[in-house]
Amino acid sequence: MSDGPAAAAKVKPASDRVRVRRLHERGAYDRATIDAILDAMPVAHVGYVIDGSPFVTPTLQWRESDHVYWHGSAASRMLETVDGAEACVTVTIIDGLVIARSAFHHSVNYRSAMLLGRAHAVKDPAEKEVKLRTFVERMFPGRWDMLRPAAVQELKATMVVGMPINEASAKVRTGPPKDDEEDYALPIWAGVLPMRMEMLPPIDDPLMQAGLVPPAHVGAFRMG
Amino acid sequence: MSDGPAAAAKVKPASDRVRVRRLHERGAYDRATIDAILDAMPVAHVGYVIDGSPFVTPTLQWRESDHVYWHGSAASRMLETVDGAEACVTVTIIDGLVIARSAFHHSVNYRSAMLLGRAHAVKDPAEKEVKLRTFVERMFPGRWDMLRPAAVQELKATMVVGMPINEASAKVRTGPPKDDEEDYALPIWAGVLPMRMEMLPPIDDPLMQAGLVPPAHVGAFRMG
Repeated sequence: MSDGPAAAAKVKPASDRVRVRRLHERGAYDRATIDAILDAMPVAHVGYVIDGSPFVTPTLQWRESDHVYWHGSAASRMLETVDGAEACVTVTIIDGLVIARSAFHHSVNYRSAMLLGRAHAVKDPAEKEVKLRTFVERMFPGRWDMLRPAAVQELKATMVVGMPINEASAKVRTGPPKDDEEDYALPIWAGVLPMRMEMLPPIDDPLMQAGLVPPAHVGAFRMG
Repeated sequence: MSDGPAAAAKVKPASDRVRVRRLHERGAYDRATIDAILDAMPVAHVGYVIDGSPFVTPTLQWRESDHVYWHGSAASRMLETVDGAEACVTVTIIDGLVIARSAFHHSVNYRSAMLLGRAHAVKDPAEKEVKLRTFVERMFPGRWDMLRPAAVQELKATMVVGMPINEASAKVRTGPPKDDEEDYALPIWAGVLPMRMEMLPPIDDPLMQAGLVPPAHVGAFRMG
């Protein structure tokens, strides 16, 4: 059925750590599937380890070729920790709830990508600015050149880290519930409740100069 | 301004590990703020450690009083790992993009909760079934009793883990951008692009018996 990207099954996992164990038919290891998830959803959850304990921090990621990047304050505990250390970047898009005839077969339609690797800070200020420009332009094409230019101290206060995409997996579920054969005869409604991120009309900053209207890139933004 | 739940600032962090460092005015440690985030958003990202490396897996969580629970296959590597071990449960709701006059002040409006603790499996089959019932009822009130009853082998194949909510923090940003004072005079549109999870019309399972319509709990479901 539609449960997982069958065409992608040919690409093998890069390591046993990223091999999808549960419902392995939902797993994919090809870059096209992984990149499509990363490119559709900037929200990421970054996992890292401090004193042996796991931490998970939400942030926004963007992809450039074979790396993902994320950024934040140079004083961020998360960024400080992941620089030179192992991290896990997980990106999840929820597409719907799968409503079945038994509790057991309820599920979620989703697209998720998990990347393992060692993160590293982008040190060079010029390279850092180019990366941040790419991030802004990825979200809002044309915005960077409309903005007040970045100040030297702003770039200093901002940390950008990157991680190569070389140990990664995707997991995808689509389609209707898969109930037990004998349950299909039951008089129970079953199906999918689809969902997506909805953008609402932009709200002007109340402190804005009069007469300004949102640029096209604001109305064009989509996520998921 | 509206940046963070000021009324909640009185409750202190339960540990230094959950103290919000960056933009600490956005941090809150009161259970009302934390519980509201957990109750609004079932999607969670669970962090755990295997051989010293961090992993982050998306799942659905539900709260019962002073615990969060999540579930999955008894063969799940994530559940197997977190049983008796430290985990981090992070729940994030994205409310909008904050679009400023400088790249530096672009931000995100969000509500997130991070819970640290030791997870434990719910072993007793009767207790496990009660927990799963609560989970289903939390998502779709009235659904459990409409379903084909859970089978003994389904309960055996399902693992439920819980974690006490006693070391947790919330981080919340709301409101317009906060630009540098001198930038407010610039002729640059700034504001917020609000967003939320949108539920689309339910899709019938094509293999369903004729004449069934979605119960009210399907149409009533909201997330975020």
